[in-house]
Amino acid sequence: MYQIGVVHRNIQRVDEDTAGKLATFGAATVHEAMGRVGLMTPNMRPIYPGAQVSGTAVTVLLQPGDNWMLHVAAEQIRPGDVVVAAVTAACSDGFFGELLATSFKARGARALVIDGGCRDVKALAALGFPVWSRAISARGTVKATLGSVNIPVVCAGALVNPGDIVVADDDGVVIVPARLAGKTWDTATAREANEGEKRAKLASGTLGLDMYAMREPLQKAGLKYVD
Amino acid sequence: MYQIGVVHRNIQRVDEDTAGKLATFGAATVHEAMGRVGLMTPNMRPIYPGAQVSGTAVTVLLQPGDNWMLHVAAEQIRPGDVVVAAVTAACSDGFFGELLATSFKARGARALVIDGGCRDVKALAALGFPVWSRAISARGTVKATLGSVNIPVVCAGALVNPGDIVVADDDGVVIVPARLAGKTWDTATAREANEGEKRAKLASGTLGLDMYAMREPLQKAGLKYVD
Amino acid sequence: MYQIGVVHRNIQRVDEDTAGKLATFGAATVHEAMGRVGLMTPNMRPIYPGAQVSGTAVTVLLQPGDNWMLHVAAEQIRPGDVVVAAVTAACSDGFFGELLATSFKARGARALVIDGGCRDVKALAALGFPVWSRAISARGTVKATLGSVNIPVVCAGALVNPGDIVVADDDGVVIVPARLAGKTWDTATAREANEGEKRAKLASGTLGLDMYAMREPLQKAGLKYVD
Amino acid sequence: MYQIGVVHRNIQRVDEDTAGKLATFGAATVHEAMGRVGLMTPNMRPIYPGAQVSGTAVTVLLQPGDNWMLHVAAEQIRPGDVVVAAVTAACSDGFFGELLATSFKARGARALVIDGGCRDVKALAALGFPVWSRAISARGTVKATLGSVNIPVVCAGALVNPGDIVVADDDGVVIVPARLAGKTWDTATAREANEGEKRAKLASGTLGLDMYAMREPLQKAGLKYVD
Amino acid sequence: MYQIGVVHRNIQRVDEDTAGKLATFGAATVHEAMGRVGLMTPNMRPIYPGAQVSGTAVTVLLQPGDNWMLHVAAEQIRPGDVVVAAVTAACSDGFFGELLATSFKARGARALVIDGGCRDVKALAALGFPVWSRAISARGTVKATLGSVNIPVVCAGALVNPGDIVVADDDGVVIVPARLAGKTWDTATAREANEGEKRAKLASGTLGLDMYAMREPLQKAGLKYVD
Amino acid sequence: MYQIGVVHRNIQRVDEDTAGKLATFGAATVHEAMGRVGLMTPNMRPIYPGAQVSGTAVTVLLQPGDNWMLHVAAEQIRPGDVVVAAVTAACSDGFFGELLATSFKARGARALVIDGGCRDVKALAALGFPVWSRAISARGTVKATLGSVNIPVVCAGALVNPGDIVVADDDGVVIVPARLAGKTWDTATAREANEGEKRAKLASGTLGLDMYAMREPLQKAGLKYVD
Repeated sequence: MYQIGVVHRNIQRVDEDTAGKLATFGAATVHEAMGRVGLMTPNMRPIYPGAQVSGTAVTVLLQPGDNWMLHVAAEQIRPGDVVVAAVTAACSDGFFGELLATSFKARGARALVIDGGCRDVKALAALGFPVWSRAISARGTVKATLGSVNIPVVCAGALVNPGDIVVADDDGVVIVPARLAGKTWDTATAREANEGEKRAKLASGTLGLDMYAMREPLQKAGLKYVD
Repeated sequence: MYQIGVVHRNIQRVDEDTAGKLATFGAATVHEAMGRVGLMTPNMRPIYPGAQVSGTAVTVLLQPGDNWMLHVAAEQIRPGDVVVAAVTAACSDGFFGELLATSFKARGARALVIDGGCRDVKALAALGFPVWSRAISARGTVKATLGSVNIPVVCAGALVNPGDIVVADDDGVVIVPARLAGKTWDTATAREANEGEKRAKLASGTLGLDMYAMREPLQKAGLKYVD
Repeated sequence: MYQIGVVHRNIQRVDEDTAGKLATFGAATVHEAMGRVGLMTPNMRPIYPGAQVSGTAVTVLLQPGDNWMLHVAAEQIRPGDVVVAAVTAACSDGFFGELLATSFKARGARALVIDGGCRDVKALAALGFPVWSRAISARGTVKATLGSVNIPVVCAGALVNPGDIVVADDDGVVIVPARLAGKTWDTATAREANEGEKRAKLASGTLGLDMYAMREPLQKAGLKYVD
Repeated sequence: MYQIGVVHRNIQRVDEDTAGKLATFGAATVHEAMGRVGLMTPNMRPIYPGAQVSGTAVTVLLQPGDNWMLHVAAEQIRPGDVVVAAVTAACSDGFFGELLATSFKARGARALVIDGGCRDVKALAALGFPVWSRAISARGTVKATLGSVNIPVVCAGALVNPGDIVVADDDGVVIVPARLAGKTWDTATAREANEGEKRAKLASGTLGLDMYAMREPLQKAGLKYVD
Repeated sequence: MYQIGVVHRNIQRVDEDTAGKLATFGAATVHEAMGRVGLMTPNMRPIYPGAQVSGTAVTVLLQPGDNWMLHVAAEQIRPGDVVVAAVTAACSDGFFGELLATSFKARGARALVIDGGCRDVKALAALGFPVWSRAISARGTVKATLGSVNIPVVCAGALVNPGDIVVADDDGVVIVPARLAGKTWDTATAREANEGEKRAKLASGTLGLDMYAMREPLQKAGLKYVD
Repeated sequence: MYQIGVVHRNIQRVDEDTAGKLATFGAATVHEAMGRVGLMTPNMRPIYPGAQVSGTAVTVLLQPGDNWMLHVAAEQIRPGDVVVAAVTAACSDGFFGELLATSFKARGARALVIDGGCRDVKALAALGFPVWSRAISARGTVKATLGSVNIPVVCAGALVNPGDIVVADDDGVVIVPARLAGKTWDTATAREANEGEKRAKLASGTLGLDMYAMREPLQKAGLKYVD
């Protein structure tokens, strides 16, 4: 499935403006705007709460227990990127820590999404470099086996092409394929437009049953009220 | 097992005073006072730390991937309630988010306990509406299939009848059946009464071995000390 | 495997100075300094973030659902110890809570590491007594069956001898056998010595590829760059 | 939630004929006939393949690591019963083995369903006494703490009342409440009636698309074919 | 990521001869021949032991709890195909049973690989239609929501394009991309060629240490023998 | 914790007669005879049903994804040994397959117990070489990093010293330390002696309640019967 030992230097990134601004919507809204696809599995969790980012994907394929390719990937990072790292087999080792985060940040990366483990989480929080990972583990890795950089990867159940948009927050990580960036932006914007009004109505006590006109379809579906 | 498509409007709630005050004891003490039953499985975790609530249960039975009945449940909420949502099959989707929380809060609900997923967790923390759930996931749900409201449900391994008391904090979620509310209150109160004294003794260096007179039973059980 | 019903009163602790200072390096660095062994499984998580401790191990073998031996262990605690509790079968019950923490702290313990559950986590955070555990659960335990204190135990996959050093932080828990304490200290110190310099280089934009001279070995391994 | 220390001697069993014959349909068909409720979680697996049983539930509530109440339950078994054992906390210990199976079989029990562990699985297969359990484990249990017999229990996510029907096969375990026995029987019978015809049609190459007239609703839902 | 509501009728299948014969090597050998990529996660297990198949992939994207698209897929099956079904969210429901298996088999399908649940496993074993799935569950599904057929899918961590080769046996499921079919065949053939000889040597007591000339590299790596 | 890169050639094996005969009791009885300690975690499962073995432990410490040391271990095997392989981090890869099994069998090994994955399971069943493992996976391993042979290891939660006795069957794997071999044999023998009689009594309808004289202690514990 994967081509091993290749680094693609030139990838087609979604324009920075769209990629960077999608973060304001958050993962849930973007996921809805996508038609409910593109979400990574929910075991991908942020190492500290509150971070909310988006950016263009630099993809990495790692071998289990080996973080060599993260160093190779660092060179391919441009400001506004989010590194997305898949691993060829399940592995909770701490592939990434403070030193790599310092390097990634210096290159302009906004975050790392890794289907493996992360360590130095206290230092990463102090540094303000967010990571979404499947595990936290002090166990380090070696630098011995090739993987690839900027090839299409499957990360936590989602297919990620280099240059796609990554949106991540406390709710999870969603991938927006480059070709759907504009449409997703429009849909998300439209979706958010009337959220404020809805929120105000609900806050004042209006029921969703009435606001969304659900009473009739519920009755048709056969819902019975018993006193 | 479950009756589908039914909403019970009139449920017998434990009196508000008892229901609301049990929170002060916390889940662990209430669970002990109950004789160590009624606890949900420990995979039910708060979406943010520090919340400690109790209230009367409005129960909901959801279908996987469908949050329609949460809107139906909203209408049945009275001030002081805690909504308890079971799902007919394991599902980590984000059934509940900011808009529903706004509505629930406006109706007077104190919290949601859901054997499924939750999303918008950052917004919910800002709103101060606590949720105990088995997962956090940006993946949304549809509104297509009936469940029920205010029927007895099994949620995270615990049987919950409408009107029962729900006590939840960082240690987990415990259900106090209506008929045991008074007795549980009394037992918990008695249990707490001498906790302060015990704590002071232990803090001063007294050993539990002596305070609880354990040396003799330990010796009888055959414990050997080796120098 | 285990001897049941025994308490060893005299154990050989690593000298307090070495044991206490290893905390400054953190679990990841100590684990590296050990040659990447001695780490507990990554399901051992702190009950609140930010704690970083080390100390000498007082070991406890518990029976599932029974915390009697934690009271026995309390008497064996000396200032600077970290209690390490194994359980003879998987059990997520809350073996440890506020009262025991008060007692352990009064005796001079710095932390508890337990391959089981913990409760009263809010109170423990307020008390500043850190616990690393595999679960949080309000479910309490009985005091009925003997285990042992200060025998060698297997806790979360790691062999722990009484008197060994325990190092724990947000990244996990690592055990340093007494005989390797000095060597580990030296290796960790050497490792940290040039970290600051490395961090500064990476922060200024130098790539790990160059700093670690990886380009040649990568090329030898067959890495291809594609434009 | 649970009453501890009680044995109900007189329970209302569904008539033996209905209870025993439901096995012929299997768990999947009965579950469908029930309206897709009443199924235990899919981690309940048979200890050997091929068994297919149904019968009336004798329920047991066990304490973790303690099988005392299984002996108490043995006395309450009548021919045609299936014992259903819940545990008050997750526990994979081997609560049940060859001797208890010999006793249960002698009393006329058809099977055991237990939300815990089982052992002596080779001997049980030789004996022809099927067990559905969440685990297989050589670890034995003690006989020290009371539970209850023939109270309503929650087992693997399903509420089971004494006398309900249990249907179990390689697909899992489903509970048919006593009051729904007749209706479930009728629905399952009707469902099976035309299965043979359907199977023959499909075996001859007819597509479900045509047999179930799905083409129109698929088109209406927007399905597009691309050549 | 996924296009919903599309059925591709014309897919480019690897030639039947190569696709069908790869089964003789088994998943482990093919996985090795691929360079250790393309393997699905090991939670994909056969519903009965002993089946060993290969064929060309017809891919399906399902919605959780909904098997409508399996009926749509049936029409696209040609003799020698293996159906590979991904689900847009984790779901253990029994999407597939005896009737669909009868239909698939009549169309010439050799097996189903599904990242969800399967039921009627006894009947499927009798029918001789093998399934690799992540779960077995009696819980059925509805036919209400569109997915897609013959689009690229991510199934159990592996990217599968329509027409790729699927190889499955008791060791797991591996995907061979169409473009690598020939090369994989050659490598696997070469790999197997001298297996018989190796096996005979090892069976006669020759050590792998000598047969693979490992003693020198082990010594270089620093291995010490202690008497 | 572990010494890496060492092979101990001379280990003290329990005498062959005791080691080999313990198999006749099975894991459950031996575990009981040991006082309920020494059992590996229940996720260690046989790759095919029915095998029942015991023998003296040759221990191996593996690195994740690397089976080099299994070849080193082969040379240390003597007739009657059971190889016990621990891994320094969780890894489900298939470390062991048909060729190694052929070699191990030729050297006289009776089985492998591995806290990792196994492959070629169909061939191993045909060969009659039983394996207890935590996973089955086609994913192979490399031969690049040193571990150790015949050092004390922690495997699936159990401490195993070289030369200890391993007993494994369908119920799991238990370790009998060399020093307890004789005592365990005696206790197991005594335990089995009256099993036949008990079984006959229970088969004839005698209740455990009476055979074990449980009625009085149950009454004392407070058990109530309700008609």
